Amino acid sequence: MLVVQKYGGTSVGSTERIKAVAERVVSTVRQGNNVVVVVSAMSGETDKLIGFAQRVSSNPADREMDLLLSSGERITTALTSMAIADLGVKSVALTGRQAGIITNAVFTKAKIERINTDKVNKALGEGKAVVIAGFQGVTEDDEITTLGRGGSDLSAVAVAAALKADLCEIYTDVDGVYTTDPNIVAEARKLEKISYEEMLELASLGAKVLQTRSVEFAMKYDVPVVVRSSFNNNPGTLVTREDQDMEKVVVSGVAYDKNQAKITVLQVPDKPGIAAGIFNSIAEANVVVDVIVQNVSVDGRSADISFTVPKTDSRKALEITQKLADDMGAKGVVVRDDLAKISIVGVGMRTHSGVAARMFETLSKHGINIMAISTSEIKVSCLIEAKYTELAVRVLHDQFGLEKQQ
Amino acid sequence: MLVVQKYGGTSVGSTERIKAVAERVVSTVRQGNNVVVVVSAMSGETDKLIGFAQRVSSNPADREMDLLLSSGERITTALTSMAIADLGVKSVALTGRQAGIITNAVFTKAKIERINTDKVNKALGEGKAVVIAGFQGVTEDDEITTLGRGGSDLSAVAVAAALKADLCEIYTDVDGVYTTDPNIVAEARKLEKISYEEMLELASLGAKVLQTRSVEFAMKYDVPVVVRSSFNNNPGTLVTREDQDMEKVVVSGVAYDKNQAKITVLQVPDKPGIAAGIFNSIAEANVVVDVIVQNVSVDGRSADISFTVPKTDSRKALEITQKLADDMGAKGVVVRDDLAKISIVGVGMRTHSGVAARMFETLSKHGINIMAISTSEIKVSCLIEAKYTELAVRVLHDQFGLEKQQ
Repeated sequence: MLVVQKYGGTSVGSTERIKAVAERVVSTVRQGNNVVVVVSAMSGETDKLIGFAQRVSSNPADREMDLLLSSGERITTALTSMAIADLGVKSVALTGRQAGIITNAVFTKAKIERINTDKVNKALGEGKAVVIAGFQGVTEDDEITTLGRGGSDLSAVAVAAALKADLCEIYTDVDGVYTTDPNIVAEARKLEKISYEEMLELASLGAKVLQTRSVEFAMKYDVPVVVRSSFNNNPGTLVTREDQDMEKVVVSGVAYDKNQAKITVLQVPDKPGIAAGIFNSIAEANVVVDVIVQNVSVDGRSADISFTVPKTDSRKALEITQKLADDMGAKGVVVRDDLAKISIVGVGMRTHSGVAARMFETLSKHGINIMAISTSEIKVSCLIEAKYTELAVRVLHDQFGLEKQQ
Repeated sequence: MLVVQKYGGTSVGSTERIKAVAERVVSTVRQGNNVVVVVSAMSGETDKLIGFAQRVSSNPADREMDLLLSSGERITTALTSMAIADLGVKSVALTGRQAGIITNAVFTKAKIERINTDKVNKALGEGKAVVIAGFQGVTEDDEITTLGRGGSDLSAVAVAAALKADLCEIYTDVDGVYTTDPNIVAEARKLEKISYEEMLELASLGAKVLQTRSVEFAMKYDVPVVVRSSFNNNPGTLVTREDQDMEKVVVSGVAYDKNQAKITVLQVPDKPGIAAGIFNSIAEANVVVDVIVQNVSVDGRSADISFTVPKTDSRKALEITQKLADDMGAKGVVVRDDLAKISIVGVGMRTHSGVAARMFETLSKHGINIMAISTSEIKVSCLIEAKYTELAVRVLHDQFGLEKQQ
């Protein structure tokens, strides 16, 4: 079997941890597998380097930032390869460039364009464990790029796809994907299996186990991904194609996101193109709008438009909206940033009706007011007051029976 | 003027130091110069990385060691470029590979084979200060190499030669090259100017201001090198071609080396090829032999052969010699490692006679016994008991009037 194993920052956070990783790699090799290892920088290293950059420059160039940050992964790549070789398994360390990871030239958040696997395949053919620096690539013009936060997950999945690997294991410091945050619900249960679609909804909703782009990539190329801990031998959670078993379960997980601000434009004149104008301007400022609600007001000639943005962007969004509201003759703009978004996710919703209603009813029964709703095929999200977050997560987890074995 | 400036580890040892370096670069640019900067890793960084490697592996592969160690320079390169840009001068950071530094494939001590200056020249043409990672290069096969300890000096001189730069400034934490160690002789004086040949003798004799290979390179390509401090604005020492002025001075400096062990093979039978056998075997073990003395013993049929090796290699050299001595029927092998080598260096010796005699006389007058002598055109070295090192340096410095302005 050809296995790609990715180890995150805490998994390679010290030389002791790197030796533990090497032991796991060697044991996988000794079980008869070919292994490609993708590593992150030691935990804390990237933040240290960012701190350095901020101290020498008020506005570091993205290109030089990438050269700086790509160093961290090179260090762990070399050390991991040395540690594997020390245990008697031949190994070679490759930078992103040497591993053939070609990206576009958007520094600090480059996209992988293709992977030239020649060097990796050659090394695998020679019986070597191949260790690759995650998070980084190189442009056609030989410039060094990085893939953005969490980019090592993407490196691993992309390499697995390019090599047509049988499995991509993402090693981290948690045991897998849970039905919800175990810090809020003690009965939260680790999922054995979850579909790509569900994982995407959970990840983008704030369950930060696996980078969103890497899940999209895995889905596109049908790479089976296992999320598991490098600190124990528990089996982890398999992220894979949707199957019949999954559809029997109505809800797979409850997610929450406290980083929500709601902006409401009051009494917007009811003319065509007004809403488009607002959202275009906000998109141009690189602010991602999430939930959108429009209520026609009593007089029928104007409407209130509400939308949510990440709390960190609320100021920027407010400034833009305020200006537009003045121009279009709206009555005013109101912001609330004491809100949270609660979501239930599950592919079973496609075949089970009444799920949304059960959610609304449950929240209402516990006196939690719903301020906006958004739904997709496999997700229902409600905007509520942030102070009810933990309560809402707990009652929904209980209502949909998530603590029980599937 | 095109200036190459190299900054060593202490000069870029913190973000504050990097900002100070950036200010110096910017001021050089504002004086109307084109500037190429070569930087080392932050002081302590390389040792930290070596420590990591030793903790994960009992015998780290050279190839992976180079990947590991080359990271340190990349960090300072990116940071220095950012700091320069922050002061309003356009700047670009280049890795050894991006700067076109092509080496052979001898990992950990690669030799520069050629430099492709296209990218550097293009950036200079665009008015940018170019920052290059020292100590590293890349093979034709795209493997990352390092140039050995002190290799950043060599990077700087080689880049200066390739660009036909007008000057190569080596910034360090001392003011320049001194007539001797100021810790031993308070009157030691900074030299304004010194020839490449003298610098080579001083460097290889233990005055560790400038890496030996970089001086050889500067001499070969006639690159004027200035050694100066990045912590003040003192003018430093110019290392350049020998000129008439220099020849007026008999002795330029007094060097010492306490890392000396003397191995003596007693009563070696007087047959052809015996000495060659010993020195070949030692050379094969990568031990550098320095002074060699052979005394024919009283009976005329055997000789004592003595030679010195670095103290750190004395054990290895002894094992080899012992075995050979047994095979050839010599009487035995004796080692002394309480010795030091004192040397006087000066191009003036070429035109002044009696310099060696004055040295021997001075040592003898102070009761210092000479155990072996070796000479070159511009150098006389004596092996003495290590306990007399400081005394010998002081009396020779005084005897040749080195404290006086040239």
